[in-house]
Amino acid sequence: MVRENEIRAGEVSVEAPAATDAGLAFIGRIRTPWTHRRAAPRQGRKDGPPCHIEIFEPWVTALQGIDAYEELEVLYWLHLSRRDLVLQSPASDGTVRGTFALRSPVRPNPIGTSIVKLVKREGPVLTVQGLDCLDGTPLVDLKPDRCRFTPLAPPQPGDDETA
Amino acid sequence: MVRENEIRAGEVSVEAPAATDAGLAFIGRIRTPWTHRRAAPRQGRKDGPPCHIEIFEPWVTALQGIDAYEELEVLYWLHLSRRDLVLQSPASDGTVRGTFALRSPVRPNPIGTSIVKLVKREGPVLTVQGLDCLDGTPLVDLKPDRCRFTPLAPPQPGDDETA
Repeated sequence: MVRENEIRAGEVSVEAPAATDAGLAFIGRIRTPWTHRRAAPRQGRKDGPPCHIEIFEPWVTALQGIDAYEELEVLYWLHLSRRDLVLQSPASDGTVRGTFALRSPVRPNPIGTSIVKLVKREGPVLTVQGLDCLDGTPLVDLKPDRCRFTPLAPPQPGDDETA
Repeated sequence: MVRENEIRAGEVSVEAPAATDAGLAFIGRIRTPWTHRRAAPRQGRKDGPPCHIEIFEPWVTALQGIDAYEELEVLYWLHLSRRDLVLQSPASDGTVRGTFALRSPVRPNPIGTSIVKLVKREGPVLTVQGLDCLDGTPLVDLKPDRCRFTPLAPPQPGDDETA
């Protein structure tokens, strides 16, 4: 069963420090078919339902050239998640695992990441496949998938450094 | 040349909204060999120099079970980056491209992501290869690489939904 903010048997919460080290500005909104946590997929799939990413002003100009990429990395804010669990029980069966060994939405900084297929762009709206988040999820960042991106800037000394 | 916070020919800045939609708590610190932006690699490599990720309390318990994963996704705060450019000129040659079509550290929410190889864990410190960030970069999140992770929680209706 999807978490509705309960703490389950065996789970451990901590007194989380104030989240004031840095601030985020939501840059857009994600539209998906999933309006409840019990309906959303556990992980996105590239042949999943088309979803929409709406970019807010003043950031729409920053989409220039994005059509060149078939796959994008999307960062979003998991706005319904609690942030204070260090051990979690995904199967609600009393066995637990550390938060950093899970891709659960419950984490100290609840940021989700997905790699999506870019289907099309229409003005400030991208149609993509591969998301797993709820309808209305705030957008934090958008960038070309690392595997498809070649830096345009000149090389740096560290580029060739190996162990 | 790496940006030292200048705005280059052709680039466009905006009046960025206040970054108050959500707050981050830094959960650790990243140690790398690179102490200046002109030295760091453009992108990390899996055979790159070993780097260290130090987890702060109260989050060390959340590392439980992380040793099971060979590759981790790391999110970090690019603390030296300006946040107000929508068009950028990576090669400083007057040609520009939108921020969301670049993996530049300069972005409205300057969060970097890397996939790293986990070499070892010693208490609160992970040794990894594949990072590209500066020494002292604040850590935001840490999770198993999506390709290596199988959800432990029971299936959900959305899991099998296709277009």
